[in-house]
Amino acid sequence: MRAAMARQLSRWATCCLRAAAPGLGWGRGRGRELSSASFGRIMRPDDANIAGNVHGGTILKMIEEAGAIISTRHCNSQAGEPCVAALARVERTDFLSPMCIGEVANVSAEITYTSRHSVEVQVNVMSENILTGAKKVTNKATLWYVPLSLKNVNKVLEVPPIQYARKEQEDEGKKRYEEQKLDRLETKQRNGDVILPVINPEPHTVGYSQSSLIHLVGPSDCTLLGFVHGGVTMKLMDEVAGIVAARHCKTNIVTASVDAINFHEKIKKGCVITVSGRMTFTSNKSMEIEVFVDADPFVDEPRERYRAVSAFFTYVSLSKEGKPLPVPQLLTETEDEKRRFEEGKGRYLQTKAKRQAQMQQAPQQ
Amino acid sequence: MRAAMARQLSRWATCCLRAAAPGLGWGRGRGRELSSASFGRIMRPDDANIAGNVHGGTILKMIEEAGAIISTRHCNSQAGEPCVAALARVERTDFLSPMCIGEVANVSAEITYTSRHSVEVQVNVMSENILTGAKKVTNKATLWYVPLSLKNVNKVLEVPPIQYARKEQEDEGKKRYEEQKLDRLETKQRNGDVILPVINPEPHTVGYSQSSLIHLVGPSDCTLLGFVHGGVTMKLMDEVAGIVAARHCKTNIVTASVDAINFHEKIKKGCVITVSGRMTFTSNKSMEIEVFVDADPFVDEPRERYRAVSAFFTYVSLSKEGKPLPVPQLLTETEDEKRRFEEGKGRYLQTKAKRQAQMQQAPQQ
Amino acid sequence: MRAAMARQLSRWATCCLRAAAPGLGWGRGRGRELSSASFGRIMRPDDANIAGNVHGGTILKMIEEAGAIISTRHCNSQAGEPCVAALARVERTDFLSPMCIGEVANVSAEITYTSRHSVEVQVNVMSENILTGAKKVTNKATLWYVPLSLKNVNKVLEVPPIQYARKEQEDEGKKRYEEQKLDRLETKQRNGDVILPVINPEPHTVGYSQSSLIHLVGPSDCTLLGFVHGGVTMKLMDEVAGIVAARHCKTNIVTASVDAINFHEKIKKGCVITVSGRMTFTSNKSMEIEVFVDADPFVDEPRERYRAVSAFFTYVSLSKEGKPLPVPQLLTETEDEKRRFEEGKGRYLQTKAKRQAQMQQAPQQ
Repeated sequence: MRAAMARQLSRWATCCLRAAAPGLGWGRGRGRELSSASFGRIMRPDDANIAGNVHGGTILKMIEEAGAIISTRHCNSQAGEPCVAALARVERTDFLSPMCIGEVANVSAEITYTSRHSVEVQVNVMSENILTGAKKVTNKATLWYVPLSLKNVNKVLEVPPIQYARKEQEDEGKKRYEEQKLDRLETKQRNGDVILPVINPEPHTVGYSQSSLIHLVGPSDCTLLGFVHGGVTMKLMDEVAGIVAARHCKTNIVTASVDAINFHEKIKKGCVITVSGRMTFTSNKSMEIEVFVDADPFVDEPRERYRAVSAFFTYVSLSKEGKPLPVPQLLTETEDEKRRFEEGKGRYLQTKAKRQAQMQQAPQQ
Repeated sequence: MRAAMARQLSRWATCCLRAAAPGLGWGRGRGRELSSASFGRIMRPDDANIAGNVHGGTILKMIEEAGAIISTRHCNSQAGEPCVAALARVERTDFLSPMCIGEVANVSAEITYTSRHSVEVQVNVMSENILTGAKKVTNKATLWYVPLSLKNVNKVLEVPPIQYARKEQEDEGKKRYEEQKLDRLETKQRNGDVILPVINPEPHTVGYSQSSLIHLVGPSDCTLLGFVHGGVTMKLMDEVAGIVAARHCKTNIVTASVDAINFHEKIKKGCVITVSGRMTFTSNKSMEIEVFVDADPFVDEPRERYRAVSAFFTYVSLSKEGKPLPVPQLLTETEDEKRRFEEGKGRYLQTKAKRQAQMQQAPQQ
Repeated sequence: MRAAMARQLSRWATCCLRAAAPGLGWGRGRGRELSSASFGRIMRPDDANIAGNVHGGTILKMIEEAGAIISTRHCNSQAGEPCVAALARVERTDFLSPMCIGEVANVSAEITYTSRHSVEVQVNVMSENILTGAKKVTNKATLWYVPLSLKNVNKVLEVPPIQYARKEQEDEGKKRYEEQKLDRLETKQRNGDVILPVINPEPHTVGYSQSSLIHLVGPSDCTLLGFVHGGVTMKLMDEVAGIVAARHCKTNIVTASVDAINFHEKIKKGCVITVSGRMTFTSNKSMEIEVFVDADPFVDEPRERYRAVSAFFTYVSLSKEGKPLPVPQLLTETEDEKRRFEEGKGRYLQTKAKRQAQMQQAPQQ
């Protein structure tokens, strides 16, 4: 027991050190109304990898559950047809610091904008080490939901408007709304791509690490409408992306960020979903993995297999001390792989530039 | 929802029909009767905290499942309307010794009393170390169930009477029945209370450790009637109480006991439940936490959020060697907090006196 | 990993010490012996497919957990080195009748034979409809376990002998032991086979329905030794086989039987396992699916990917009324596919002949 405790404490200590930064005013002005909610859950062994880091997918699933609850609650707050809010889009999300087994994940959600047919929800996640009291912001996510009628899943209902404290809040929300709408349209037109199998691939090639899983959609994966929760899909996507990353660099890896994800197509209970991932780009210390979700409504449905979601995940490799390690360079072979590598590089440089601009704007933070 | 219920019932009906063939002599010559049953399961890492102690909530959930099986079986043992036994009340339960990952939890249940409309079930839990063969009693719980018609959930059916070996058994059972009935009536009249958020609370105050979680009720949380299993609710309550206790004393904590819990209001599939906990009292070596469960039937229901259950959990703090540690005193600030502290002290002293009386009655045990 | 193992062992040791107090008369007067045990659980929506039939894999996992508990308990029943019983083999198992959501699965296990280094466990499963009281035998399974030292996982310990009521029981057990030993040796020498991907396959070909999933082995999947429970592996295998079967015939399918499975290679916590399935044979009303499990110990391990288990599953397709439906014939294309089809046909005819022989021997049962 001593050894166990010692090891666990030392793992814990690492977490503590990491978490020792001053808490960021969690729950400021919570004044819990209809349009905000917060809750917590202890992170369990099954939520984490063998190094004790909570999977990014576990956190994405919690974020989405909070968003689904608060937006469904809001959309049903006025008399009218009952509805369930369905996830339409998640904005790009960074994982700001790792979370560990035994910590409490505190998730708070707030509705920040409503258009006629959609709801913007801001979800913040903090890790809390309940032994030291230390708290760290781990995620700030923005999600868009659309209310679908409980009686007719193809009918989008109207969203009750929220009150803004200041006119600027509404204007900024509207701007964000227009931007994401454009991006959603664009990805909808993008062509489907498939991951082709490779026989006897060399290490560090794309074919070597590409992976896929299948999952039979069960009742607990679904909303009241009988369609898969967006969070369940994101958790599976993160699982595949993590396996691709681990196969490539054979070390402890963690999710660093997820690009914006659009959910164009619903996935029904009883479908089999195939989640496939391939590496597209490596920088010195990060890997970008593209993940596809295909749904196969093979029982009782006339429909063919279809592409439901796709997204880019970025992973980093960590040493036993939690420091980022260099990543082996991805070996590209085909023309398509080379093109995707360049596109990934473009996204990488753009994100880097954006981050530097933000840091210059707010140097005092 | 009607349609959903009808569908579930008709599925069930098909199962019933299929299963209606004559039973194949289950348990022949094993002395197994209708009114007792036993179950077991290996404790896994996810069932426990990081020190390896199985959560009290995991055990409460197993206890309730055993009770639900045996009482539903009993209530359907005579020809008549099919029914599902719903948990009405759990008597005060002590956690007599800790259970660890890798041990087998053996749960045995027996019907000990029946009134016209309710069933008393005694459930005993033993931890078994299958390596050493050592066994320890960890819990002795008493639960009350009420049979609800499968066709009309608001109709309470009659319970087939059990046979008593001795007249005294029936008399004692009747006494327990009357006592719990009174207590159930009383708590039903108690006023709802809410947990208000506190901004920047000081350590060891009530506001510092209070916590809440939300849970979307899924299909696997529910009985055949589509209402949450009492055990699922108790597991969530224990989770919140544990977070409150850990936030207060920042050490390894375990459930020591749960006061009697009355389940006045059912919670339906699709509801969001908010489970909130706050510390009410500390003695030298224990903490009392009050936990509330509120249900939000926000889709497809005209009903407002309502208080479904509330209960008091007692926790102790353990050293690395498993010895009880002193607990920091709870700092009460408001009048209400001071009142609740005194009430908690009353419960604490009453329990202590009762235990001492029992020990004097049975000194050799 | 050394450290991890030490940690787990030392935690376990503490549990042992704590539990070493004399057992409190568990099972007094209930005729419960060391060599038998029984367990039960309500079947939930998550245990079943959308038609409400419990997955064969859910049942296989319960069977194996019961076997692991009873054989570990038995192997530690005499003073000596502590050990954990690891699953070595499951004999061919038929699924005699379907189980439904809401029914209780009653699992009873008994040790029926011991050799010097292995334990034979007989596990029976009954479904119980607690509303009607109807019970049906759903499975009769035979499993073989081997005790591995808790201190040195590569050391097989000696098994305490059991007492037989009659000399014939021992002789018959010995015969079964010799037979399975031969079969184990044989499959060990069989060469590894791989499932090659197929691009744009036609319906009803082997390539059209072949499927695979990957799973990251988490702590709750493992025994105290840190290796995957045999039952967890079988559940994943059944999941893949079920998807292959559903893809082939696009109807509601259920597991009809599983051929003998040998577990030659352990799978460690932290591995990624790939479970792949392909159809090998169809009769008029059944499908045979071959499933492979490969383990990829890619973190912290010098070892290459290896074949851990393989097995044949038989599925049938059911109408909405639960009647077997005709199965579309498998279209074989390559020489290998044709050969495997003929081999599958051989197994099918052999099983059929064996069943007819049994029915003639025991026509009245």
